[in-house]
Amino acid sequence: MEIWFLGTGAGRPMKHRNVTSIALRLPDPDCSLWMFDAGEGTQHQLMHTPLKLNKLEALFVTHLHGDHTYGIPGLLSTRSYVGGNGPLQLFGPPGIREMIETALTLSSTRIDYEITYHEVSEGIVYKTERYTVEALPLEHRVPCFGYRITECESPGKLNVERLRQLGVPAGPLFGRIKKGEDITLPDGTLVRAADAAGKPQCGRIITIAGDTKPCDNALRLAQNADLLVHEATFAAGQEEKAHLYGHSTTVEAATTARNANAKKLIMTHFSTRFVDEDLAGLEEEARTIFPESYAAHDLYHIEIPRPKE
Amino acid sequence: MEIWFLGTGAGRPMKHRNVTSIALRLPDPDCSLWMFDAGEGTQHQLMHTPLKLNKLEALFVTHLHGDHTYGIPGLLSTRSYVGGNGPLQLFGPPGIREMIETALTLSSTRIDYEITYHEVSEGIVYKTERYTVEALPLEHRVPCFGYRITECESPGKLNVERLRQLGVPAGPLFGRIKKGEDITLPDGTLVRAADAAGKPQCGRIITIAGDTKPCDNALRLAQNADLLVHEATFAAGQEEKAHLYGHSTTVEAATTARNANAKKLIMTHFSTRFVDEDLAGLEEEARTIFPESYAAHDLYHIEIPRPKE
Repeated sequence: MEIWFLGTGAGRPMKHRNVTSIALRLPDPDCSLWMFDAGEGTQHQLMHTPLKLNKLEALFVTHLHGDHTYGIPGLLSTRSYVGGNGPLQLFGPPGIREMIETALTLSSTRIDYEITYHEVSEGIVYKTERYTVEALPLEHRVPCFGYRITECESPGKLNVERLRQLGVPAGPLFGRIKKGEDITLPDGTLVRAADAAGKPQCGRIITIAGDTKPCDNALRLAQNADLLVHEATFAAGQEEKAHLYGHSTTVEAATTARNANAKKLIMTHFSTRFVDEDLAGLEEEARTIFPESYAAHDLYHIEIPRPKE
Repeated sequence: MEIWFLGTGAGRPMKHRNVTSIALRLPDPDCSLWMFDAGEGTQHQLMHTPLKLNKLEALFVTHLHGDHTYGIPGLLSTRSYVGGNGPLQLFGPPGIREMIETALTLSSTRIDYEITYHEVSEGIVYKTERYTVEALPLEHRVPCFGYRITECESPGKLNVERLRQLGVPAGPLFGRIKKGEDITLPDGTLVRAADAAGKPQCGRIITIAGDTKPCDNALRLAQNADLLVHEATFAAGQEEKAHLYGHSTTVEAATTARNANAKKLIMTHFSTRFVDEDLAGLEEEARTIFPESYAAHDLYHIEIPRPKE
């Protein structure tokens, strides 16, 4: 599983920092792309990555501010151009449907695939075979949601040699054992899954908070997350200004990560007042509170490993 | 007067060719910026030019297709950020107001200046002290307009030495003569403007056609233009396909320029099938019909001189 920061800026684009968008590439066997927000120029940023728009399966919008949404109509239109035919799930606060449908309809944009709009409220908003996505409202100037993605446990690895010793024939029984089921062979032998398959692997938890001041729901969403992505529009010491605009500072993002017992924090959504050279300093501010803090820059991407036992 | 091609592509952005937008920088004393269309990422392109968004005074939209409009909400929002406070005139086909207002309203975008929407129909759509803009419908898949900008004559240069010889005192009388007025001095002497001021300079005519197949109105708009900007989505020989999609080929754009007696043709809005290396060939195709043909590329810009006598 890989996360890409396509745009890491707030408000308006800068030469080297686009407005907000994040892409999550799901591992085998899904291999699909989930995106979180798409400010103007997100599809342009995608052209500088190996990510493919026709793999896009779901787009989660945190809130309707333009720096998080103005790239959506173009993204959806281009997805059609490049032959993305699978259905698309589009999640966001109430109003997302009207915003996108108005743009697509008035521009007579032809979309060759089905878009299902989900205007979200608190709770589980999406569930696939391997993932659950929960949304909680945050505290911003407009309705804004954070998303917590929980990957299900992965079955333990089969010990094929051991299964042979136990006399289990290769075939469907292997699959049942892999799923954790105990089985009885035709001769009456009981084979316990625990004896022939490794322990299930824990799933990852990724929290992608939208724009917010520090709040309880951000903390809830980030609980024990393997990765918390949190905005840090302002630097330490600018708390008053940050809260006035419904935002957080670096140390507040780090405090949420620490208090939630998250494993790693990546900060994004930096104010246009910061140039690239400021990022190291912003990172340092956060690390005084939570050592595993990082400041994202455009096209920054990392692999998110499965948690160890 | 300077024209900038901010994006020269059709349909969707490519790495080195953005979707359509054109900027016209008016000369002294206006010094303001007029834009024609703004596909997604137009504000990003502007950052690579000396053009300033706070100078933007009017935006003319040819039609509502996304590759010509999806950059407008972000452009208007950023204009507010960068302190553009003057009113903005926004021209376009019916629907432009709903499209832009829906995006701005649902995204809670704060605009610190007044936007006046003009949903255009055939005729003169805008008139300032020095310019007249006329719109005519073209032939595309959706309602689409071409714009003809006519600059007024500029007063001839005063011959100050001659005025002194004639006994005209410096002051308001100079201004009246410059405007072409004959005056009578207190001693009864008649001073003819023609004797003391050069000939008025002709104004420029610039025609910016939107997406269209070849049609009479494109020809009318381009009549005697100093510069015709015309789409050439397709290459010579692809006429059938071009017309199916409401577009033109290089040789058709050149034919319109020749038949309209235009002085210069710049082609834009190239299909994504063409890479930059193809542009020279497209230019050559047009030059077989109209030698003063040029293919624009992103950030291509030229000075448009006043026509000679």
